[in-house]
Amino acid sequence: MKVGFIGLGHMGAGMAGSLLKAGHEVVVFNRSPEKARPLADAGAKVARSVAEACEAGLVVTMLADDAAAEAVALGDDGLVTHLPKGGLHVSSSTIGVELSDRLAEAHARAGQAYVAAPVFGRPEAAAAAKLFVVAAGEPAAVERVRPVLDAVGQKTIVVSERPSAANLVKLAGNFMLASVIQSIGEAMALAEKGGVDRKLFLEVLTSTLFDVPVYRNYGGLIAERRFEPAGFAAPLGAKDVRLTLAAAQDLGVPMPFAGVLNERYLRLLATGGETLDWSALGGLAAKDAGLPD
Amino acid sequence: MKVGFIGLGHMGAGMAGSLLKAGHEVVVFNRSPEKARPLADAGAKVARSVAEACEAGLVVTMLADDAAAEAVALGDDGLVTHLPKGGLHVSSSTIGVELSDRLAEAHARAGQAYVAAPVFGRPEAAAAAKLFVVAAGEPAAVERVRPVLDAVGQKTIVVSERPSAANLVKLAGNFMLASVIQSIGEAMALAEKGGVDRKLFLEVLTSTLFDVPVYRNYGGLIAERRFEPAGFAAPLGAKDVRLTLAAAQDLGVPMPFAGVLNERYLRLLATGGETLDWSALGGLAAKDAGLPD
Amino acid sequence: MKVGFIGLGHMGAGMAGSLLKAGHEVVVFNRSPEKARPLADAGAKVARSVAEACEAGLVVTMLADDAAAEAVALGDDGLVTHLPKGGLHVSSSTIGVELSDRLAEAHARAGQAYVAAPVFGRPEAAAAAKLFVVAAGEPAAVERVRPVLDAVGQKTIVVSERPSAANLVKLAGNFMLASVIQSIGEAMALAEKGGVDRKLFLEVLTSTLFDVPVYRNYGGLIAERRFEPAGFAAPLGAKDVRLTLAAAQDLGVPMPFAGVLNERYLRLLATGGETLDWSALGGLAAKDAGLPD
Amino acid sequence: MKVGFIGLGHMGAGMAGSLLKAGHEVVVFNRSPEKARPLADAGAKVARSVAEACEAGLVVTMLADDAAAEAVALGDDGLVTHLPKGGLHVSSSTIGVELSDRLAEAHARAGQAYVAAPVFGRPEAAAAAKLFVVAAGEPAAVERVRPVLDAVGQKTIVVSERPSAANLVKLAGNFMLASVIQSIGEAMALAEKGGVDRKLFLEVLTSTLFDVPVYRNYGGLIAERRFEPAGFAAPLGAKDVRLTLAAAQDLGVPMPFAGVLNERYLRLLATGGETLDWSALGGLAAKDAGLPD
Repeated sequence: MKVGFIGLGHMGAGMAGSLLKAGHEVVVFNRSPEKARPLADAGAKVARSVAEACEAGLVVTMLADDAAAEAVALGDDGLVTHLPKGGLHVSSSTIGVELSDRLAEAHARAGQAYVAAPVFGRPEAAAAAKLFVVAAGEPAAVERVRPVLDAVGQKTIVVSERPSAANLVKLAGNFMLASVIQSIGEAMALAEKGGVDRKLFLEVLTSTLFDVPVYRNYGGLIAERRFEPAGFAAPLGAKDVRLTLAAAQDLGVPMPFAGVLNERYLRLLATGGETLDWSALGGLAAKDAGLPD
Repeated sequence: MKVGFIGLGHMGAGMAGSLLKAGHEVVVFNRSPEKARPLADAGAKVARSVAEACEAGLVVTMLADDAAAEAVALGDDGLVTHLPKGGLHVSSSTIGVELSDRLAEAHARAGQAYVAAPVFGRPEAAAAAKLFVVAAGEPAAVERVRPVLDAVGQKTIVVSERPSAANLVKLAGNFMLASVIQSIGEAMALAEKGGVDRKLFLEVLTSTLFDVPVYRNYGGLIAERRFEPAGFAAPLGAKDVRLTLAAAQDLGVPMPFAGVLNERYLRLLATGGETLDWSALGGLAAKDAGLPD
Repeated sequence: MKVGFIGLGHMGAGMAGSLLKAGHEVVVFNRSPEKARPLADAGAKVARSVAEACEAGLVVTMLADDAAAEAVALGDDGLVTHLPKGGLHVSSSTIGVELSDRLAEAHARAGQAYVAAPVFGRPEAAAAAKLFVVAAGEPAAVERVRPVLDAVGQKTIVVSERPSAANLVKLAGNFMLASVIQSIGEAMALAEKGGVDRKLFLEVLTSTLFDVPVYRNYGGLIAERRFEPAGFAAPLGAKDVRLTLAAAQDLGVPMPFAGVLNERYLRLLATGGETLDWSALGGLAAKDAGLPD
Repeated sequence: MKVGFIGLGHMGAGMAGSLLKAGHEVVVFNRSPEKARPLADAGAKVARSVAEACEAGLVVTMLADDAAAEAVALGDDGLVTHLPKGGLHVSSSTIGVELSDRLAEAHARAGQAYVAAPVFGRPEAAAAAKLFVVAAGEPAAVERVRPVLDAVGQKTIVVSERPSAANLVKLAGNFMLASVIQSIGEAMALAEKGGVDRKLFLEVLTSTLFDVPVYRNYGGLIAERRFEPAGFAAPLGAKDVRLTLAAAQDLGVPMPFAGVLNERYLRLLATGGETLDWSALGGLAAKDAGLPD
């Protein structure tokens, strides 16, 4: 298929590469054009504007946050303007429910289809086509883009006909990851202050109940207090917790753990943690217990 | 080895059975004697008192809570009184750090050894010798009981020379499980109120980031709102969170998630949840969101 | 002075009445015109549109929420459009910081002045000119409207040259009131479950440390569980906590108490509390403790 | 009346002085005897032991914490041993409900009466006989000591026939004070980061809704970040919150605000705040918002 791809950060570049490997004809666009070079070398065509990427009729976007996603889709020179009638926008960015609903509406008004398809997985998984894709949208539109979704991930789960439901699921997943980080942080501070070696404690956890990469990876970062360089930066984690709470507010769902996480991310960012990995939240517990860095 | 075994509940009976299968000579004792029958059929000798079980010189206890463990060990007719000098007490019960410290002191004064060896795993794992054992105590004492620990579990991890450190690790682990329950509860209520089917949401979680029995099992109970019969009763879960906070208080470790969990377990117990499984905590989030039962 | 006054709810009607009593020439407007009648009888001129009220050059607004305030000020037929150049808008509504900043900007672009002047006090205080006014804006503008502010309140405190700072102070004050409600609720549930009569407990509080109407009034409502009819409805209290948290988010201020309040208001509203007084939050603690209604 | 008085700290010395001024015959005892000197000068007899103070038949105790109160009452040379049959112990210390219940039981077994009569007020109020006394116990015993209670306070409120109920009310009151401190801290950090001067913000609060010494005093300390010297030390405040939560745990009362306070006091004490005033809790909010000290 012919696919436009906008947003070539760590995740987007990997996904676009996977599309190429699967034999799709990919037209990439990125605000900073140098990021397109490796993909051009791998066979992608490089567009000079969003409009040019839109000529493919089907465009996948993978952008950093709501502001970028809103600008690319709803801005003057954006997707809604340049996609043809009958065109389709697949939004894989982790964005808020409210914006996703607005995108759905805008595309519908323009006679275009819209599928939300955020993904779980890290950049390496994106490059290896091993992501998990959570998709939502009108069944016909979802079917139409399935070859694209299958090319970037190892599994596609369709959760609703309403696109924003996929964004909600993605946010809920990130909320659960942040909860893992916080619970490891508290438990490890307790064990350490009680005289148990941090890595030994982590070994107990991950060789018994929590034998899964999420606990091993975040637990390792927290045990080693290795929060730089950031794999997923604290401001991004903070943003996802905030968007989770915004959705909870609109839907009327009380979330006490999410409230604790939000308060602590605000503190992390206000006290010098802007450049750290989001797992640095797990380090606050040790700090609050008076443990040495 | 000759081993006394006191406390034949679901966990204890399985562990005593595993000891028999491994070829140990086991003398069992339980307050309600009928629970000893199946083990007698399997070859155990049945003691009529704690004192008689103490004749083995080495006694494992697996009791329901601090009160039972305190009575059996420190009571007038208890282990400290009846174990011979040089005897050894292996406490596998999930008890508080403070009591474990008192047991260590009392046994030391009586010239006896004391090893704390709480376990992770359910009754089926106990019966199948698949538990994970977290042990702590003087190295010589731990070595002495290693054949016993190895006979009940698939792995033994020694975390400290101070016995109560093993109890602390066990409590920290149960705190982390309760955190999993709460985070699933909040996330699932959010997804459901946003129109996503609960089981579909759980499938997303467990086929991606959280592909591990803990999430599958508790997630399943919460998705189906199946909190009866209790696999692990809410009052026991509440007790472990309380003991975690008590240890945190004594050690000076602030634990905001544990505080939220404690408050919610108190509510669950005060409003009719005494007979439910401890995963019913995950059902409160849906209730608070106004979702139907 | 000639003053337009828009928004004749319980608070606004009292304030407009105070302006009349102080000798000002008042032109009132309300979406539902019947609310203007008593003021007309007292000497007010009744405008048929926002535009007509704007002829006064100086307009005070007292509206229910951000949506109403935004529509009246920024809507097609709103204040920004109809106030003359050099006109002045005094916004007394309890609105968010973000909206107040947008109003300031819009009026500035239109060559108009803007003062935020939210008030503390109940409808009776409004009618008796006993409100406390918290004002912020350019010094010249604040001086110009001082006769109006002094006519509705017993004291005017100017907190900043940036209008939205007054809104922030008002929100912070309402957050503190909600904290009082929650703390009384928890303490009273504890005392009651410990066998102390609720009213006796309240008497202890209000005759010692907390001898002030806020504690007496909310404490009385909570002690009597008298949450209907609503003096200040739960959705309005919930909204103010939400706006407080929104400001805290934008400014980077972690507020754990505000997080707890927000979560509990969401629960109150999602479980049937929409028509209750906002002090019903204080009743949740008793409910969670299993106390009878 | 003849009255023994044990515990001559800031509060106790003031109370004993008030008893003398009211014409009672006072026999004082303090572990460090030099604190008795000023009272001896004012006419008190100085006892050399708890036993000697007990000869009065009626003994008031005002001690720092549960450990001191337990030692003086239940220790080998304590009140229960030395008070005559028919003697009466008035405990004014801020102690836990559980200890108060044990004291009641021990005195009852010894044929002695026991009244709990904790007080609200600061040392100056104690010296000026302006305390508020919260009393509980058997009606006859309470009546018997009323002249003593009336001599130290401006008002005595009897809340229950069960002595520990008075301790519960005192703890609930201190929980409410800690809630005031925390809510001021959060609100003031928000206002300050929004550009409002801290003292101006406090003036708004205390000239409107919160016109009461509690808010003025703690607000002033927080606005000035003047947490030394401690009027009421952080470890004592932390202890009272902990005892509140212990009572809540035993009675089955979920208290989310108390949980937040407890977590934050643990942090304050674990990170260098041991010598500060308990209002330093209100300074954490500013710190977490990244505001300068």
